[in-house]
Amino acid sequence: MFKTLSSKAASLLDQELMSTGAFSIDQLMELAGLAVAKSIFKEYPPTKFQNCLILAGPGNNGGDALVAARHLKLWNYNPILYYPKKSKSNQLYLNIATQLQQLKIKEIESIEDFKSTASSTDLIVDGLFGFSFKPPIRAPFDETIKYLSETKNLPPIVSIDVPSGWDVDEGAILEHNIIPSLLISLTAPKPCASIFVEKNKNGKHYLGGRFINEEIAKKYDIEELIKKYKNDDLVVKL
Amino acid sequence: MFKTLSSKAASLLDQELMSTGAFSIDQLMELAGLAVAKSIFKEYPPTKFQNCLILAGPGNNGGDALVAARHLKLWNYNPILYYPKKSKSNQLYLNIATQLQQLKIKEIESIEDFKSTASSTDLIVDGLFGFSFKPPIRAPFDETIKYLSETKNLPPIVSIDVPSGWDVDEGAILEHNIIPSLLISLTAPKPCASIFVEKNKNGKHYLGGRFINEEIAKKYDIEELIKKYKNDDLVVKL
Repeated sequence: MFKTLSSKAASLLDQELMSTGAFSIDQLMELAGLAVAKSIFKEYPPTKFQNCLILAGPGNNGGDALVAARHLKLWNYNPILYYPKKSKSNQLYLNIATQLQQLKIKEIESIEDFKSTASSTDLIVDGLFGFSFKPPIRAPFDETIKYLSETKNLPPIVSIDVPSGWDVDEGAILEHNIIPSLLISLTAPKPCASIFVEKNKNGKHYLGGRFINEEIAKKYDIEELIKKYKNDDLVVKL
Repeated sequence: MFKTLSSKAASLLDQELMSTGAFSIDQLMELAGLAVAKSIFKEYPPTKFQNCLILAGPGNNGGDALVAARHLKLWNYNPILYYPKKSKSNQLYLNIATQLQQLKIKEIESIEDFKSTASSTDLIVDGLFGFSFKPPIRAPFDETIKYLSETKNLPPIVSIDVPSGWDVDEGAILEHNIIPSLLISLTAPKPCASIFVEKNKNGKHYLGGRFINEEIAKKYDIEELIKKYKNDDLVVKL
């Protein structure tokens, strides 16, 4: 269907981009978050999905969500942020959070506010956990994910790179699982993306993160994948 | 016609983005360079303008050009780089230059190679000097700019933010001046952009760098300007 990278291979590729590839995390996160926002705009335009709840986890997946929120705000969305476990030491995350404050993006802090917002918003962006995720899910994200997976009639969920709570390589592992309407794979799909596409015939799947050179693409056997991008598009529907 | 920012105001705005705005130079340059590449793609698609000569100066304008070259290469252009005065201490510029090497972007080093390439390529991207430029023009850029301004039948020139060699606030000041076909203003046009548009009826003018929050826009009186962006576009034709 499409080539995937295991969590281990994705981690190695990421390290390689930042070592020999000479990319800074600022650059990569900017391009990843922009790809997320671009994919959302294509499938859920602000004319119909203006209010969106941005769920940011403690790591890079959360950082991508923060960058996406910044772009979405400038594109006429009204994002609300739930970012309960902020890093106190990662300067980049702190900076992007400040950028969001300056855009007057509202933030909610309690799990109750999360629940009521999730039920009443137009769109939910799941940036809780990415390809480095290992169980168990710690509080408050256990309750967050339980709510997203068990509540009926929620708005569409957009997952960044991995539907949060799923095993990156094995797919859904919880008793109840988030089922996104749109999955945005970054750099390359992870094995859970194949499972997502197989099991959800209506699920949409995009690829973003167009920054891989030929040599790295060859090494990780994703040359055919990155040829799918067209023109100057930053994302492609798979 | 459109609101402009003097070199002094542009410099203050830039400092503000990086201090209270909490942006890193990596983030800003990534978005600026991407806006440059997006504008080029709209006006000069790779189907007709595949070969392009990227002129990178020693400062941030050159950095924007390097980032643009990276995106252009991934979008099926064949950029060739002329970057004769590399910073030895700016880690970001060094990193982006490495990224270009890994994309196997060819580099030329002599002024003779610059001249022959400029005359035979499809497009020239002028990232020599930006809004911090103050005369005099030092070697080898004096000869570079003289060649670009005096040689007939060159391919179209795209200038990033400021046509190199022009006074940022006063416009063209040299005996001979670069006349770009496309000027891409970043964040906001500088006064020289007004002069460019007035004197070159066929000159195209784009705005890019869509990262300004409302408060900063208000402070610098560019609210109307940033409202010109449409949808999720990163650039707008002015």
